Amino acid sequence: MALPARGVTEHAEHAATRAVSPLHAAAQRLLGSRRLILAANRGPVSFSALADGTLRHRRGSGGVVTALSQVSEHVPVTWIASAMSDADRRAATDPKTLDAAMQHGGVRARFASVPRNVFEGAYNVIANPLLWFLQHEMWNLPERPMIDAATMRAWREGYVALNRAFADAVLAEVPRNDRSPRVMLHDYHLYLAAERIREARPDALISHFTHIPWPSSSLWQVMPPVIREEICSGMLANDVVGFQTRRYAHNFLRSVETFLPEAGVDYRSRAVHWRGRTVLVRSYPISIDVGATRRIAASRAARRRAQEMLDHAAEKIVVRVDRLEPSKNIIRGFAAFESLLERRPSLRNKVTFLAFLVPSRTSIREYRDYGRKVNDAAERINARFAHAGRQVVRIYYDNDYAQALAGLTIADVVLVNPLIDGMNLVAKEAAVVSERDAVIVLSETAGAYDQMADGVLPVAPADLLGTAEAIWSGLTMPVAERRARLVRLRAGVEREDISWWLRRQLEDLADVAEFRQAPASATAGQLR
Amino acid sequence: MALPARGVTEHAEHAATRAVSPLHAAAQRLLGSRRLILAANRGPVSFSALADGTLRHRRGSGGVVTALSQVSEHVPVTWIASAMSDADRRAATDPKTLDAAMQHGGVRARFASVPRNVFEGAYNVIANPLLWFLQHEMWNLPERPMIDAATMRAWREGYVALNRAFADAVLAEVPRNDRSPRVMLHDYHLYLAAERIREARPDALISHFTHIPWPSSSLWQVMPPVIREEICSGMLANDVVGFQTRRYAHNFLRSVETFLPEAGVDYRSRAVHWRGRTVLVRSYPISIDVGATRRIAASRAARRRAQEMLDHAAEKIVVRVDRLEPSKNIIRGFAAFESLLERRPSLRNKVTFLAFLVPSRTSIREYRDYGRKVNDAAERINARFAHAGRQVVRIYYDNDYAQALAGLTIADVVLVNPLIDGMNLVAKEAAVVSERDAVIVLSETAGAYDQMADGVLPVAPADLLGTAEAIWSGLTMPVAERRARLVRLRAGVEREDISWWLRRQLEDLADVAEFRQAPASATAGQLR
Repeated sequence: MALPARGVTEHAEHAATRAVSPLHAAAQRLLGSRRLILAANRGPVSFSALADGTLRHRRGSGGVVTALSQVSEHVPVTWIASAMSDADRRAATDPKTLDAAMQHGGVRARFASVPRNVFEGAYNVIANPLLWFLQHEMWNLPERPMIDAATMRAWREGYVALNRAFADAVLAEVPRNDRSPRVMLHDYHLYLAAERIREARPDALISHFTHIPWPSSSLWQVMPPVIREEICSGMLANDVVGFQTRRYAHNFLRSVETFLPEAGVDYRSRAVHWRGRTVLVRSYPISIDVGATRRIAASRAARRRAQEMLDHAAEKIVVRVDRLEPSKNIIRGFAAFESLLERRPSLRNKVTFLAFLVPSRTSIREYRDYGRKVNDAAERINARFAHAGRQVVRIYYDNDYAQALAGLTIADVVLVNPLIDGMNLVAKEAAVVSERDAVIVLSETAGAYDQMADGVLPVAPADLLGTAEAIWSGLTMPVAERRARLVRLRAGVEREDISWWLRRQLEDLADVAEFRQAPASATAGQLR
Repeated sequence: MALPARGVTEHAEHAATRAVSPLHAAAQRLLGSRRLILAANRGPVSFSALADGTLRHRRGSGGVVTALSQVSEHVPVTWIASAMSDADRRAATDPKTLDAAMQHGGVRARFASVPRNVFEGAYNVIANPLLWFLQHEMWNLPERPMIDAATMRAWREGYVALNRAFADAVLAEVPRNDRSPRVMLHDYHLYLAAERIREARPDALISHFTHIPWPSSSLWQVMPPVIREEICSGMLANDVVGFQTRRYAHNFLRSVETFLPEAGVDYRSRAVHWRGRTVLVRSYPISIDVGATRRIAASRAARRRAQEMLDHAAEKIVVRVDRLEPSKNIIRGFAAFESLLERRPSLRNKVTFLAFLVPSRTSIREYRDYGRKVNDAAERINARFAHAGRQVVRIYYDNDYAQALAGLTIADVVLVNPLIDGMNLVAKEAAVVSERDAVIVLSETAGAYDQMADGVLPVAPADLLGTAEAIWSGLTMPVAERRARLVRLRAGVEREDISWWLRRQLEDLADVAEFRQAPASATAGQLR
């Protein structure tokens, strides 16, 4: 769950006040007079066609968009996204429409546009059903995936082609006289784009950041060699390859070592030597815009929703906020809560579980099936434990960010128990908006755990009793300890916020740029 | 698929001729006048009760039994196994019955006996549904496992208790005056047994060998902390911890580092420093008894079966031999074959796929469901491609080792495409019994791949087209290349056979023994 992308325009007004911030300085150092070129599947704007054929636009949404919207507060940005609909494809050919749509923001929006069937193959055959499932370890391996001729066609004619289109769209935005454009590529849709950019502009400075986990190479090993090798070598066309955690960065290094034996992998300096270049492999844990998150949590709408919830809830409140997504481990979360109510009868009328579940990928059968099982679990618990007409589990199934944040403000315990998660921003949002000294129960397998270990209660995702016990500990923890934990967590999130995430990437890229310009003798080996 | 355990008695007669072998020397060096104490879930003998209550015995079966039966050819062995039935439990209390059952072998058989419900918890809740599935990455993680109160009870009152019973059974076999018994523990049923043996006999020399994969620590991370920590610390009570491959050994080291932060893990020397002791972590790829395998393949029964198969098969023959087990990836193997027939019409009447599938764990629903899907796939292919009444896929669903070996002798291509496999002995059996210069198509994810990479055609398990292409390459490969590959593979299996596997373990344990006896000053740090 992440802040909706209001940032693009709403936050621009704050840019002036941050002009001297370290982030701004890093951006200046990296870019000089250049625009930063961002590329990500989703963009700051998307289009739909009205009945009369005119195009209507709306702001983009999703976690990556929210994070990247930060960038535009500090630097001039050209942002290239997938044309995901026919309306997008029409807008793609018309820069004036695009510029008009973005007139209130600091962003120049562009589309990488491919025919619908090409995009379908890239997105609905490769990126979401294959790469997302692989990287979240969500396969039932004895039966899936079956990588057949249709999959391989979608790879070559869809994913590879879309990445080529992204590279071309990036190159089209590079001024003729700029031999070293600054390009940031984002996420698992764009593993291959750097290679073609590098061919055309060998001196480009390119980074790629993967927002989702990078699993052990033994999982990549089930994939056809051509896919895993092209992904690894495609990534190595970047100058900096970024991941959410050190473990994912380590897993990537090991994948490169396994699948590209001719690459030189240096675990200590976290670098790969590849085709005469050095590629840095780094971790940049993503975070939230603390101020914006707090403003929404303090809004009148959120306050009103919080009060309504309090009116209908029991004394103690457990909250979860998640896309309705199998990797979020929602069923086990409910099962753990059920087991807690079984084992602690004294709790039965004293606690309400509010689950804010955001609809997601409802066109994929696994997601629909999963949603049904989530509902069944909630109904089962209510049938067993509802008291005086009051549900013990209440599901809010909609995409209402202010409402979800309102839930986090009133939680006594926030349950964040994903099976695996690139980062998980709910844990960080909870830390900054809680008004009841919430105890955060967090999976050790969430990327956020690395930063938050000293304040949360850890759980292993399949461990129902352990999860039940952690919720119980949270509900019964003395207020002084709850507060002390939350203070630590909050300070951490404030320190390592979204601008910290961005700044460190810009700084590392700027370091690479300076290293390149320095005389070779003075710096030889320095980046190793 | 492994040789049935005829070894225990049949091979004893060969022991004399091997008296001066390196294996025998290693055993002598380790044991002196001691008996070696082996412990494994299955033993050399099992019992059933006749209607009148008298006990009848038969020889044990399974891959581990076959491998361990080798040991008894060379050294006096006491072999402790689980009492798996009420008849076993009766026999357990009566050493005379046990000794009578083993009178023709060099083995003293004993049982670790626990009440039926304890065994059920250890075996049918923990070992097979939980540890086997985890270590073969067979979980559909969004839904399974659900580790609830019943699972945790089975852990404590089943698995932990059974391991305690094994330790006590081992200790009961140690002569009073032997302060340093030599004990070899086997496989995933016995991760905890060493700890209690070590407590009673601090100077014991204990090894543990895991016959199945050891996955990445990120998979262990979904498990309750108490389980993963007790497994790791239980393993570290051994002196030598052995795995099938270097990768599994590495994964174990990383698991220890992740779950036992106070352990000192040294990746370079592959050792763990733990509670004042040094534990060696090694790989010992298991193998086959080459001579015994060849004798069975050359037996009259096998020859007759081979001729019958040839009479009904097409010109070219593809063979697979596997337990009917989801990790063996049988469905994708058929799908790859189907895609080959689609793409190469010229092949359709010229090839037969013989699948020797051994019934396995039919009491587990996942196995039954999987078996049904395997059959459906075969029927679908036959419906599409059967010609003149001849099936293109023929399934032999029984446990007939000679028949399966007969299949391997006449194969042009042997398909061994598991999702993941501790070792896989079929690939090694095929290399030594082939009479048609078979090409072996082998998953990179099978443990055997590490030793056989330079002779096999590699495949990624989910890659249907790659697998189809590898089968095609095998079927069309010039005979000279087929032969050259097979010669290399055969030489490797002959060199690194089952006695090599055993000898290296005995030698490493003997080294530890000598290191302990040497004055500390002379050897300090030598085993690091």
